[in-house]
Amino acid sequence: MMNGRLYGVGVGPGDPELLTLKAARILRRAAVVAYPTGEDGGAMALGIADPHLAAGVLRLPLPLAFDPQASNEAAYDGAAAAITAHLEAGRDVAVLCLGDPFMYGSFLYLFARLAGRVEIEVIPGISSLTACAALAGRPLAARGDSLVVVPATRREDDLMRLLFATEAAAIIKVGRHLAKVRRALDRLGLTEQAVCVERAGLDGQRVVPMNELTEDSVSYFAMILVHRRGRAWS
Amino acid sequence: MMNGRLYGVGVGPGDPELLTLKAARILRRAAVVAYPTGEDGGAMALGIADPHLAAGVLRLPLPLAFDPQASNEAAYDGAAAAITAHLEAGRDVAVLCLGDPFMYGSFLYLFARLAGRVEIEVIPGISSLTACAALAGRPLAARGDSLVVVPATRREDDLMRLLFATEAAAIIKVGRHLAKVRRALDRLGLTEQAVCVERAGLDGQRVVPMNELTEDSVSYFAMILVHRRGRAWS
Repeated sequence: MMNGRLYGVGVGPGDPELLTLKAARILRRAAVVAYPTGEDGGAMALGIADPHLAAGVLRLPLPLAFDPQASNEAAYDGAAAAITAHLEAGRDVAVLCLGDPFMYGSFLYLFARLAGRVEIEVIPGISSLTACAALAGRPLAARGDSLVVVPATRREDDLMRLLFATEAAAIIKVGRHLAKVRRALDRLGLTEQAVCVERAGLDGQRVVPMNELTEDSVSYFAMILVHRRGRAWS
Repeated sequence: MMNGRLYGVGVGPGDPELLTLKAARILRRAAVVAYPTGEDGGAMALGIADPHLAAGVLRLPLPLAFDPQASNEAAYDGAAAAITAHLEAGRDVAVLCLGDPFMYGSFLYLFARLAGRVEIEVIPGISSLTACAALAGRPLAARGDSLVVVPATRREDDLMRLLFATEAAAIIKVGRHLAKVRRALDRLGLTEQAVCVERAGLDGQRVVPMNELTEDSVSYFAMILVHRRGRAWS
């Protein structure tokens, strides 16, 4: 019997309509649909995929850590083994990935374990990067601009160095790191040009200019967009 | 009469299936569909959108420059005026954007002219960034990685500085700048970790490791992906 194929399916950032036609087709045909549990995004990804799944589909929960800094080797090994068993039984497996599978997602740790051993196809998804920019009405980059994407978990001097080196930046996973990011922006005189986009496409979504944001922390699903000139076009 | 609404619709990087459900819905309902001409991407964008357009849709060509470095003020002013006339007549206008409207697209110059004056909604699209990574089977970034997107039009020392400052990079619009990019990668010892993705999702697509690429130039629709560790997960 032929082995099944593993699909890493980007389902977009939260809005169910930001699924691609290709992702919808793959989901309709998959025998097994796997999704991470133990993280906010897993349930959300399943909700987006659900209307497209075949009646007889097998739902496979993968208990994976939410904290991207945490070590979770055993859980990833177990998830990879569970997926492999289905593939070896000839069943295609679609792993749901919020946003895009290859941008900061937990799918990367499954890919690391399975690439080269099983057939894998990655279906790109709308990333929170472009979704947040669209919601905020803030172009990301134009012409020769460099654009850096950097997690807010980085040290303050790292953030400052990267903000200084580029024309445009998206600081992701802001959460409890807001005060640090705010200091970095202030020191570089970029606060006026920065905007915070929280929970784009989800309940409670909002866009707040950084100079009006008074909280000490925001959602983990928050991103700060900044452009040196205040706008991406010249 | 109510004015129409302007949609900047990302149609993805070339594969017609990488259109989102939302873009398909907007395209079905638009009275006018505008697309840039005079650039390779415009015809491609229209081809992707075409199966979704209503029977009576008005197709509005916008003569815009292909070279993102070129000044083309009069053409953009004219395109903005043509769009505004339709909006004022109460017709919704969808402007087709290859990839994502807010990442390096010509839509930015229309947005610059019309934002604040007409109602605008941006529908994010799959960018060539995630599409190229998916095709190459190369994760972009994980955990705390910083990821820079930079056009190959930048000077060699700019490219080196940005490659040195980040864990991961996507060098876009490579075209005739290949030799310069190759030198920058060589000098930083990153050639082994770099891959060139040409025309992802289009005829003639290919993925070539940089140490096997012998040409002096590649397509304008080529991107070089590089990660310091050779892979995005630790």
